[in-house]
Amino acid sequence: MQTEAVDIQLYLTEKSRLVEKLLDEFIPPSTEHPVSLHEAMRYSVMAGGKRIRPILALAAFEYCGSENLRNDRAIEYTMAALEMIHTYSLIHDDLPCMDDDDLRRGQPTCHKKFGEAAAVLAGDALHDIAFALMARTGSIDVVLELANAIGTFGMIGGQIADVEAEGRDVTKNEIIKIHNWKTGSLIRSSVRIGAILANADKATLYSLSAFGENIGLAFQIIDDILDIEGKPELLGKKVGSDSLKRKATYPGVVGLKQARIDADRLIDEAINNLNSFGDNMLKHIALYIGRREK
Amino acid sequence: MQTEAVDIQLYLTEKSRLVEKLLDEFIPPSTEHPVSLHEAMRYSVMAGGKRIRPILALAAFEYCGSENLRNDRAIEYTMAALEMIHTYSLIHDDLPCMDDDDLRRGQPTCHKKFGEAAAVLAGDALHDIAFALMARTGSIDVVLELANAIGTFGMIGGQIADVEAEGRDVTKNEIIKIHNWKTGSLIRSSVRIGAILANADKATLYSLSAFGENIGLAFQIIDDILDIEGKPELLGKKVGSDSLKRKATYPGVVGLKQARIDADRLIDEAINNLNSFGDNMLKHIALYIGRREK
Repeated sequence: MQTEAVDIQLYLTEKSRLVEKLLDEFIPPSTEHPVSLHEAMRYSVMAGGKRIRPILALAAFEYCGSENLRNDRAIEYTMAALEMIHTYSLIHDDLPCMDDDDLRRGQPTCHKKFGEAAAVLAGDALHDIAFALMARTGSIDVVLELANAIGTFGMIGGQIADVEAEGRDVTKNEIIKIHNWKTGSLIRSSVRIGAILANADKATLYSLSAFGENIGLAFQIIDDILDIEGKPELLGKKVGSDSLKRKATYPGVVGLKQARIDADRLIDEAINNLNSFGDNMLKHIALYIGRREK
Repeated sequence: MQTEAVDIQLYLTEKSRLVEKLLDEFIPPSTEHPVSLHEAMRYSVMAGGKRIRPILALAAFEYCGSENLRNDRAIEYTMAALEMIHTYSLIHDDLPCMDDDDLRRGQPTCHKKFGEAAAVLAGDALHDIAFALMARTGSIDVVLELANAIGTFGMIGGQIADVEAEGRDVTKNEIIKIHNWKTGSLIRSSVRIGAILANADKATLYSLSAFGENIGLAFQIIDDILDIEGKPELLGKKVGSDSLKRKATYPGVVGLKQARIDADRLIDEAINNLNSFGDNMLKHIALYIGRREK
């Protein structure tokens, strides 16, 4: 058991910078043709954000012993790839035919800045480069893990279910399924990818999958909560947009108070999924997700 | 040297059916949630088409000896994946913010039939499943090969260059680069993927890459020619749409007569790239591409 205090904020800041360094390395410079496309991709990935998915992959990799015999940059490739996948999903989500958002992290969304054609293609290109990076790990398992997490039974399935649920009443089971697919599956997969690269044993992979699922759902419930009672200056966007668009949200189904209780319970469960009793970064990231304000 | 006559039309018909069988196997049934998404994906991949990319992969695989020790379904996975990638690119190309096409192969385009949100996501999902299938081959090399062929220095780069070239004059070098990126890179890669899976030696892979590049450019030049003098009833779409949209085309730059001469020359060169002097399916596919009317 470690005894020194963990400075989670410092860890998150340092690792965010690492993620940004990697994104800069793996996306072609905007001086290269096609210039407009590389610019649009860089604009969107560099717009900030918590970089929570790649940081989770790294923390899971470290939790499992950081051993990758095949390729010593493997975890870095996956970190960049996971953030690219997240960004691609945001760019396509923001399109006029989907959520029709003008602002993201306080800046014009990709299609507002570069036009819709460039935004569709910038998302496609990030999706594509992410798979090139996953392949560069040398591990077929992580390529498959990612592909399954973001397909029609995962992230993309959640996105269409989310669009289709707009304006109608949903049950608690439905909203949990939408959130698990749309947000939970990529978060869970980020944790699993770190563990797979570190050659985690089956039991550890199993418990970390449960950990990832719990924090993934908590993350999206808190997102919904912040859209109601968050601070716009911290979020970089207006609040209340879910309600305006009559989106299906977790607090919309169970109420704000119960949503907060459920999120806290999920974070507790996630921490119980960890085998290690002492301090570790996964635990602190879970706690951070539980109390995040942006 | 084989002496029996080759029935290329029979080969293409039989292999098209195989591709359709594989697509049906690897795309979730439209009874599964999310229903609308699976329906949109199936609608677009099952709309017909020549299936030329997967057939090229298979023919290259056979040309190189059809030996894959790792996985006896590997070539089938890549065949389905290549057709899914092609279909994803068509769905996104047809969107109102890109080419804004209402008809594809005589049917309403995906967004006309299912709406834009479903079309964007159906394309995304096909893109994603394609990588899952590539991973199931067990070969990191083919995952990387595909990812590189369809990225910003390949298919997607060609698509944005194509959109950006609309309405302005381009040089011959520019249009060759756009065509090589937009169409050529996936066709070249289809040939290479078949060869890689069959463990082709370096020299063969090199000559087949040149073969693929030549037929890829010829294919797109002929596409441009058919948009001018093709038969709408064979093409399943109106002709003249490139000119209407002031798209950059090869005959638009060099003239219709020279375009035909150049396409024929590329087909000849492609056949010269093949080491095998006798009959083989790659040669017959090249000849078919040279004389195609749809």
